[in-house]
Amino acid sequence: MNLNEIIRPTLILNKTICYRNIENMIRKTEASNAGFRPHFKTHQSKEIGKWFRDLGVDKITVSSVLMAEYFISDGWNDIVIAFPFNPREIRNLLNFPGKARLGILASSYQSCEYLAEQINFPLDVYVEIDTGYPRSGFHYKNTEEIIKAVQLLCINENLVVKGILSHFGNSYSADITGIPGLWEDSITKLQFIKQSLACFGNFIVSAGDTPCCSVVNNFSGVDEIRPGNFVFYDVMQSSKGICSTSDIAVSVFCPVIDIHPERNEFIIYGGAIHLSKEFVTNENGERNYGLICPVHENGWGLPVEGVFVKNLSQEHGIVHGTTDFIRSLKIGGLVAVLPVHSCITAQCYENYLTTDGELLDHM
Amino acid sequence: MNLNEIIRPTLILNKTICYRNIENMIRKTEASNAGFRPHFKTHQSKEIGKWFRDLGVDKITVSSVLMAEYFISDGWNDIVIAFPFNPREIRNLLNFPGKARLGILASSYQSCEYLAEQINFPLDVYVEIDTGYPRSGFHYKNTEEIIKAVQLLCINENLVVKGILSHFGNSYSADITGIPGLWEDSITKLQFIKQSLACFGNFIVSAGDTPCCSVVNNFSGVDEIRPGNFVFYDVMQSSKGICSTSDIAVSVFCPVIDIHPERNEFIIYGGAIHLSKEFVTNENGERNYGLICPVHENGWGLPVEGVFVKNLSQEHGIVHGTTDFIRSLKIGGLVAVLPVHSCITAQCYENYLTTDGELLDHM
Repeated sequence: MNLNEIIRPTLILNKTICYRNIENMIRKTEASNAGFRPHFKTHQSKEIGKWFRDLGVDKITVSSVLMAEYFISDGWNDIVIAFPFNPREIRNLLNFPGKARLGILASSYQSCEYLAEQINFPLDVYVEIDTGYPRSGFHYKNTEEIIKAVQLLCINENLVVKGILSHFGNSYSADITGIPGLWEDSITKLQFIKQSLACFGNFIVSAGDTPCCSVVNNFSGVDEIRPGNFVFYDVMQSSKGICSTSDIAVSVFCPVIDIHPERNEFIIYGGAIHLSKEFVTNENGERNYGLICPVHENGWGLPVEGVFVKNLSQEHGIVHGTTDFIRSLKIGGLVAVLPVHSCITAQCYENYLTTDGELLDHM
Repeated sequence: MNLNEIIRPTLILNKTICYRNIENMIRKTEASNAGFRPHFKTHQSKEIGKWFRDLGVDKITVSSVLMAEYFISDGWNDIVIAFPFNPREIRNLLNFPGKARLGILASSYQSCEYLAEQINFPLDVYVEIDTGYPRSGFHYKNTEEIIKAVQLLCINENLVVKGILSHFGNSYSADITGIPGLWEDSITKLQFIKQSLACFGNFIVSAGDTPCCSVVNNFSGVDEIRPGNFVFYDVMQSSKGICSTSDIAVSVFCPVIDIHPERNEFIIYGGAIHLSKEFVTNENGERNYGLICPVHENGWGLPVEGVFVKNLSQEHGIVHGTTDFIRSLKIGGLVAVLPVHSCITAQCYENYLTTDGELLDHM
């Protein structure tokens, strides 16, 4: 990596860390004898997808029809779009290349009615269950409605109901000590629904977000896990102890453009459009939009204690710094920002620059 | 506009409202006999830029070298990059087409040293002053340092010091009743500095953000104003009374993908990557990531009372709704989301679709 070529906020990827994160998750999955259908919404990169493929992964999760199209064009042919079915995109599903095995979500009775009536091409369906994270899907207590929905789907011979699927998004706000219990509880709920649907077939149970899959060691009770964020991790995860800051595989290199020792602050070229407005809250209640690390030719170091992005404009980042760190800076220098939410930060870029100097695609 | 063609979150522009916002600001500027150098960072569109040009605007503000390049390629030739000088981009400035008159900011003594030593091509310079919004620039009280900085810049004959420039960003967090006082106070500070620099020439005073320029009627004391957000406005501005919701010129049309009357919520295809994570706080302390309006063939209606985006995942939006409004929805329908911060939301898209069905560029 030639630091002189970095003139603007640039998304940097450490392949060694990323590869290690992938290998660790595969190892855990194998030890539990669970299937692995990683979510590709975090990296959205064909090149990074190939690293998974090289390690034996052959089925993936995405969060949009667009993303499915993107990865199908790179030869992936077993894809679940883990997002509530959007009737407006039905033609796009129809026009998918014939070879790919595509799964979609049925998240409500109304969408099952639509699917039962309208789908005239083969499609796998997963029934989405809300086990305690109230976003989309059937509430786990509505067993009767779930059974009726599956009956409805089974009327249409093009639809193959494959299983039940859930995203335990409540794990993102849970304390790390509560995660094993949250996992057990959610799996129990899914297993109950699976049994209630046993008359329709042997449905699989698909679950698994990054906090749970990082903390829990035994995935028994699920047939496949679908974490995504673990590929990069981020400050949101490290601040909860889900990972360490040395597990974070991406950072944004930002030029220093103004320095204010008198108020313990410096300004970087790196704003809301380069980092996103995601923040975590520090112990004393301050917002933290990213941690600051020193930059070197081969990558970045560990975060500097007490130095963090305290506010963001469209293109400026305002960084709270320590006296010593600020003294080491000069205008035109570079710092690395560890992102609070790596999925959303990566979305701001068309490419990754690896610490080895390679340029990788981002959708 | 053909609503059937809108299958995913789509950025919609109402040209009538946008044009009216531009005309209103031009009228106010003319009444005050001030210059007008609108900030193009909000729309980042050549097509929308042409509407300004048609109304007589011939000089603009941008927030990056990239944005300057973009607008120079459409014939703009008097551009101020209102962002602290970034030494890493010096070659990009050098390679600008010869005809454009380009201005940059000197925000610190250290950057003045750099500019004085390194710039070997003609360049206008504006000295950035912090009048009470502690982001970048010389603090207004440091008159001695400012004088020394201008002396330094004057050594290099390629540099033409044109004036002093400030962004009163504190207006964004001020109550509307405090804005006229904030404006007066900031202008007084700038006028004092202008007088302190009178021995170097008759410098212009450049100021003017959207809250101030919308509320204040008399711009005397400034030579040019540089608001940007007013072109679209947004919920951040309407929630403070700076504009009305009927002045907001952009919205994001989002498909409804799940409906939960039992918890007064529905889910839209429209998440953090389509709206950004900017929020305002409602009176009762809830976060509000956007207001919801009904959609019709010619655009959108006024926001529905009590309906707002309460949370965002990467691609999902969770909307709090009223019983009546939720009853009117069906999966696959569309709602319009008025964005909290239009500059950052527009950044998520490569195009605008106008309510007349035209497709406009976004940088």
